Amino acid sequence: MYTFQKWAKTPPLGWNSWDCFGAGITESELRANAAYMAEHLKDYGWEYVVCDIQWYAPNAAGKGHHYDKFTPLAMDAYGRLLPAETRFPSAAGGKGFKPIADYVHSLGLKFGIHMMRGVPRQAAAQACPILGSGANCREIAHPFSVCSWNTDMYGTLPGEDSQKYYDSVIALYASWGVDYIKCDDICVTEFRKWDNPYTADYEIEMLRSAIDRCGRDIVLSLSPGPALREKTEHLRKNANLWRMTGDFWDEWEKLYEMFDKCLLWQGVSAPGSWPDCDMLPLGSLIETIDDNPPVHRYTRFTHDEQITMMTLWGIFKSPLFLGGNLPENDAFTLSLLTNEAYMRMHRQAEGARQILRSETNGKGTIIWAANGRDCKYLAVFNTADRSRKVRVDLRDVLMPGTAYSVWDIWEKADAGQKKDAFTVEIPPHGAKLYQIR
Amino acid sequence: MYTFQKWAKTPPLGWNSWDCFGAGITESELRANAAYMAEHLKDYGWEYVVCDIQWYAPNAAGKGHHYDKFTPLAMDAYGRLLPAETRFPSAAGGKGFKPIADYVHSLGLKFGIHMMRGVPRQAAAQACPILGSGANCREIAHPFSVCSWNTDMYGTLPGEDSQKYYDSVIALYASWGVDYIKCDDICVTEFRKWDNPYTADYEIEMLRSAIDRCGRDIVLSLSPGPALREKTEHLRKNANLWRMTGDFWDEWEKLYEMFDKCLLWQGVSAPGSWPDCDMLPLGSLIETIDDNPPVHRYTRFTHDEQITMMTLWGIFKSPLFLGGNLPENDAFTLSLLTNEAYMRMHRQAEGARQILRSETNGKGTIIWAANGRDCKYLAVFNTADRSRKVRVDLRDVLMPGTAYSVWDIWEKADAGQKKDAFTVEIPPHGAKLYQIR
Amino acid sequence: MYTFQKWAKTPPLGWNSWDCFGAGITESELRANAAYMAEHLKDYGWEYVVCDIQWYAPNAAGKGHHYDKFTPLAMDAYGRLLPAETRFPSAAGGKGFKPIADYVHSLGLKFGIHMMRGVPRQAAAQACPILGSGANCREIAHPFSVCSWNTDMYGTLPGEDSQKYYDSVIALYASWGVDYIKCDDICVTEFRKWDNPYTADYEIEMLRSAIDRCGRDIVLSLSPGPALREKTEHLRKNANLWRMTGDFWDEWEKLYEMFDKCLLWQGVSAPGSWPDCDMLPLGSLIETIDDNPPVHRYTRFTHDEQITMMTLWGIFKSPLFLGGNLPENDAFTLSLLTNEAYMRMHRQAEGARQILRSETNGKGTIIWAANGRDCKYLAVFNTADRSRKVRVDLRDVLMPGTAYSVWDIWEKADAGQKKDAFTVEIPPHGAKLYQIR
Amino acid sequence: MYTFQKWAKTPPLGWNSWDCFGAGITESELRANAAYMAEHLKDYGWEYVVCDIQWYAPNAAGKGHHYDKFTPLAMDAYGRLLPAETRFPSAAGGKGFKPIADYVHSLGLKFGIHMMRGVPRQAAAQACPILGSGANCREIAHPFSVCSWNTDMYGTLPGEDSQKYYDSVIALYASWGVDYIKCDDICVTEFRKWDNPYTADYEIEMLRSAIDRCGRDIVLSLSPGPALREKTEHLRKNANLWRMTGDFWDEWEKLYEMFDKCLLWQGVSAPGSWPDCDMLPLGSLIETIDDNPPVHRYTRFTHDEQITMMTLWGIFKSPLFLGGNLPENDAFTLSLLTNEAYMRMHRQAEGARQILRSETNGKGTIIWAANGRDCKYLAVFNTADRSRKVRVDLRDVLMPGTAYSVWDIWEKADAGQKKDAFTVEIPPHGAKLYQIR
Repeated sequence: MYTFQKWAKTPPLGWNSWDCFGAGITESELRANAAYMAEHLKDYGWEYVVCDIQWYAPNAAGKGHHYDKFTPLAMDAYGRLLPAETRFPSAAGGKGFKPIADYVHSLGLKFGIHMMRGVPRQAAAQACPILGSGANCREIAHPFSVCSWNTDMYGTLPGEDSQKYYDSVIALYASWGVDYIKCDDICVTEFRKWDNPYTADYEIEMLRSAIDRCGRDIVLSLSPGPALREKTEHLRKNANLWRMTGDFWDEWEKLYEMFDKCLLWQGVSAPGSWPDCDMLPLGSLIETIDDNPPVHRYTRFTHDEQITMMTLWGIFKSPLFLGGNLPENDAFTLSLLTNEAYMRMHRQAEGARQILRSETNGKGTIIWAANGRDCKYLAVFNTADRSRKVRVDLRDVLMPGTAYSVWDIWEKADAGQKKDAFTVEIPPHGAKLYQIR
Repeated sequence: MYTFQKWAKTPPLGWNSWDCFGAGITESELRANAAYMAEHLKDYGWEYVVCDIQWYAPNAAGKGHHYDKFTPLAMDAYGRLLPAETRFPSAAGGKGFKPIADYVHSLGLKFGIHMMRGVPRQAAAQACPILGSGANCREIAHPFSVCSWNTDMYGTLPGEDSQKYYDSVIALYASWGVDYIKCDDICVTEFRKWDNPYTADYEIEMLRSAIDRCGRDIVLSLSPGPALREKTEHLRKNANLWRMTGDFWDEWEKLYEMFDKCLLWQGVSAPGSWPDCDMLPLGSLIETIDDNPPVHRYTRFTHDEQITMMTLWGIFKSPLFLGGNLPENDAFTLSLLTNEAYMRMHRQAEGARQILRSETNGKGTIIWAANGRDCKYLAVFNTADRSRKVRVDLRDVLMPGTAYSVWDIWEKADAGQKKDAFTVEIPPHGAKLYQIR
Repeated sequence: MYTFQKWAKTPPLGWNSWDCFGAGITESELRANAAYMAEHLKDYGWEYVVCDIQWYAPNAAGKGHHYDKFTPLAMDAYGRLLPAETRFPSAAGGKGFKPIADYVHSLGLKFGIHMMRGVPRQAAAQACPILGSGANCREIAHPFSVCSWNTDMYGTLPGEDSQKYYDSVIALYASWGVDYIKCDDICVTEFRKWDNPYTADYEIEMLRSAIDRCGRDIVLSLSPGPALREKTEHLRKNANLWRMTGDFWDEWEKLYEMFDKCLLWQGVSAPGSWPDCDMLPLGSLIETIDDNPPVHRYTRFTHDEQITMMTLWGIFKSPLFLGGNLPENDAFTLSLLTNEAYMRMHRQAEGARQILRSETNGKGTIIWAANGRDCKYLAVFNTADRSRKVRVDLRDVLMPGTAYSVWDIWEKADAGQKKDAFTVEIPPHGAKLYQIR
Repeated sequence: MYTFQKWAKTPPLGWNSWDCFGAGITESELRANAAYMAEHLKDYGWEYVVCDIQWYAPNAAGKGHHYDKFTPLAMDAYGRLLPAETRFPSAAGGKGFKPIADYVHSLGLKFGIHMMRGVPRQAAAQACPILGSGANCREIAHPFSVCSWNTDMYGTLPGEDSQKYYDSVIALYASWGVDYIKCDDICVTEFRKWDNPYTADYEIEMLRSAIDRCGRDIVLSLSPGPALREKTEHLRKNANLWRMTGDFWDEWEKLYEMFDKCLLWQGVSAPGSWPDCDMLPLGSLIETIDDNPPVHRYTRFTHDEQITMMTLWGIFKSPLFLGGNLPENDAFTLSLLTNEAYMRMHRQAEGARQILRSETNGKGTIIWAANGRDCKYLAVFNTADRSRKVRVDLRDVLMPGTAYSVWDIWEKADAGQKKDAFTVEIPPHGAKLYQIR
């Protein structure tokens, strides 16, 4: 086990600003969500408060999920991005995110931020010196390794000077008290030159080295997906979590696709190494169409779909990051996040695997199983568009001919003694999650 | 469930003449094997005595696995093949296989024969009339649907006259008292015309119809493999068993390949429908090189490989057909065939599936599980070339934290109480088969 | 140059019975066509009279292009096919085709016959001895190398006994006085076993050897096409002519496709080696639908299409074999066959090549050029469905700025002096053929 | 015919600074080459003097073929690049290239410059306003359409503002008196996003529009190659010449490859539309390895290879741009450029096409032919590595049986009267170029 893997022995739990604030999150919003988590969720295991992309862009305020092209970035003399003071007033005076991190820590929580792979184009244009290196930011900028959806950065060239730049950035973050980094445009990149796909593997490795040297335990998450399954070993050696898909939103098709992804990555999850189903678009979200101002809306998932999502993410042991604005949570949402039996399963269960998939035209039954310390967990999904009776055969995972006690985790109710098999009615796109002893 | 499926509710068990006598089996050899089965094996469930290919070829005697090209065939006036009287004396006087079938039945066993798809080339050359049809055998012969490894037959053209021919053949077999037919050159065919693969599906269907009309319950087995997985439904509707591979022999590579085939067909087995791993080359066999006389030899499989083979065939519920000359069985071979716990598993277990495959370069651990009525079966394989300690995690199929009684089926010994997981040393290419309560 | 190539220094010219009599040609029909050729065509270079397939099948009379499956064949004790005496009375008494060949020779013409690759299935069934070999016909029969459209033969296995069989057959043909053999089912075969295409190359080589040993100069033609371009060297070494396409008939699409084939084989033609455009379906033909009696009809090609066909075959130097029943030729047909300038071009021209192809959606202009001894030939085709003015640029093959005399070969008329380029109106699917000095 | 096509009725002839000065050309070097052309070459048709890439980069001086990443660029307030005054002193005071263009014009020659597709990254960073548009350079910059080998520019987004930018740039060039533009990174681009190749077609169209509106006849050349053959129509409609290959240098393999390219583009050349074989690396060149200072060297082509190159470029009617530093030309080089018969062929010949390619393993004979006004041209190439006798068959393009006068263009000698065919010895990698009457 690598040392850094010990920093995430169970899948990280927390909140991320993207789904509800996009690139425009402000200090007060960030603090309000941290406070809510401390008050309502911390006792159930939730701990990370993560500020997503473009916190360094003054003009991103109010832009939702839209990025201005070549927007000016707050940056220090060494080409390192800084929180935009207009949005994060406590950063004034060169204090960066330290005041906010201190606040989050004071609540007994942990603080995380987003970063983009590479060096700011603005730093390359200005040829900013790199801290601790004789080279400058122009020299490490990769001339054509650019992100296709955001113009803030150049990728970096291979070499020691690029490592120095990453070291300087991570050292700064560590000095602020950052506990978690979500690095973007790095897990997969969208470009090919002729027929060679361009990969950022060496930059992942530089990031790993920079964190390992920084003196602080910082959990590393890689985006965007879909991570390539054949790169599992490289991912394990360098990161704590990585995305299995592109951005997830509250659409049934995306949720349904996640069953395939979980199967593809089945057996990979282990302490310190977590394939990630992406954020949970629960509660109050925003939606941004083109470059219009974002519109507020509540999640489009039905209650049953929310249960399906929580059940799949949970039994698969995906990291869980809430996407909604926490203070606006309704009672149902909160109930999903504070179910003790569910949270215990997420923390303790092992060996999750799909044991049945029986569908016609993508509609039918999927069952996953996992082991608790002295119990079994069974997640039973109805992917059809109508309510269906589903047969659960306990013999797949338990002794034939023996009766077991079945507990319905979401209903918080005893489902009785069951032997060999039983039938349950499940609503459309819904799920049952059982603990069996 | 189709009616014909009821004739093989559990996978057929028996003996077949091919591995030890090739195309040259004689009446006395056939009777000797039947007698052995009645005396030593019948009580354990073994019941079919099957006479393989070219029983109608006088010159096949002593040729082992070699076929003479265009060899003369014993045939009646309607182009139906008859047992060669020089090899099967009781067939004299037009009695066909009836006397032998009667003898087998008198032992409390069942009798089966091999047949080739199609109509004899000899019958086409002679334009023999077809019983019950105005047409003759030349008219139904397919001009280019010929087998690549045996020249006895033409395939038949689609049409009612071909059906009549098949009807006449099966009626004759039924009149003899045949209980089991292994039809060859039909499950897959080797030819393509331009880019179109040639299939014999319509001849499979004609065979099905002929049996359903014949008034006798005749189990139908299709050869050779590899049957195509995508044709499962067609196979289910028309046959009781079908081969998953080409001819199986006592070579580790072929045995090892069967793990893939069982996985490919996992979940298909059901009462009346049995994917078939092919005969068991155990005990005394022959080997034929080119057109030399066959040489006698004992199986090349080590004891551990024999256990691996029996274990895989058994938990997968493959039909079991012994290939060796039974009277020459040694004590070890006989012990494999008369293990009561094993035979019960083969008869009763359900839901077999691979639950672990962990190998490096094709060497390591494979585990299959199945359900008994009130027990679990676990088959643990070591595919490596050296002895290895293998960890068995009971939690994959049983309750974590609970102790179970483990019975070692091949050792006929109690393996003790086990909780969660245990380790066992398995010899190279060997297996453990456990019944767990 | 191989010796056998000297036997066909210019492309063979003649008549073949297939298009007008199918498999059912009789002696009187054969003689009538020979007599016509001697009287009307011989002076223009036409010389071969060729009897096509199944002359050995008594029942083929009146069947047109239909073959009976497994029909009985006239055969000698050595498994060699003989003319069916009911159709060729002069063959009585074991004289074979000798009387007819003598007659053809008496007219100053040459005689050819068709043969199928391999050994008769009937000879294999009877295990006929092979002349000059200890083996019999059953032993050389290839078990699965069978023709897909005719059931008379098996291919032969590789080996000396097969060579002996071919030797015996060709020796018989030589003794009859045969000058030309069209061997069928050999140039390409239709079968594949698994993914390997089956080729009859070794049988082509055996045929070559048999002819070289027989003591008679017999021109060898291989069918059917499409011969494979990449096999050119093998074809050159073994045969005098070979088909570039499947059977050609009087359909514009087939005629149009021949432009591609001629381009594919451009540059290959040489003394003794002739890629073959197949027979000319001119004049009175038959048509056979399924197994109905054949129906007589005149060619469906328009006069312009006939000119296009003759022009392309001629400038490409394809062998020319007339397909119609010669005594029924009308004046136009005969005029095509007796154009002296055309016949001289076919005999003398060299270096034919396509110099222009300008079409939209397969309709437009194609131009081929060839060199005479002191002249140029230009063939100008209009592939469109309407009359079109076509520009002919002499500079592609002649000196710019110089005036040349242009002779219209089909019109037998002087087309005047032309310099650099001129325009000519060509009817739909028509052609102009010019000799230029 | 489009108006712009009239500006290049014959293929452009001139000189380009790349091969001998790389990105570092200075005003005095440019003027010296212009003076040489006026004195030695103008009378033979040579007319364009072209300044290649990075004339706007002060730091490019002395860098040869190496580009500094993100090097500062001389630029006006509207984001339009200007000649670096340190290298082109006459550009001082905002006069741009006008003084040099005036000088070139005064010699009776024409002046050309290189440009890169897109807008300077530096102009995007500074958000320079676009002349005649309310938008700025940042807004039209394409976020990820970047060149992989030079970092000066961003591609532009589709839209009217990008058109305005191109209009402003071309207007500036026209005001300087530019007669010829070689636009780079536009003919093909190297990038793909996922599986979609990225093309710059719309920027080609914007460039076309900008030139058509600028009021000056500016010939447009597109780089780099290989242009796609299937885009011929788009190229014809928008440009005067376009490259068929990547950068050409004095290596036999590249020269040999050009035979394939000329065949691929055969028949496309027409007044105003010229597929381009790229510059002629003759005489004194430089070579740049990595970022070392460039090294001077003379062309590595042997005299025979130079003749082969001139012959192929000439008969194909490629544009001809000299790559060497003209004042350093030796007598042999100069003789190639001042051969009157050759220059006349290049100007007048039409209908060039390959008429023979006979090689084994890429070594043998290639012959191209073209038509003069009252003569034929034949170019005969020996691609082998040793001297070979080559047979030239005049009948391929001239009347058989007729004698013609043959003039050896490079030898400037009468090769005698020839009829039908003759043989000539050609040195390795050499060529003969004949004018025939």
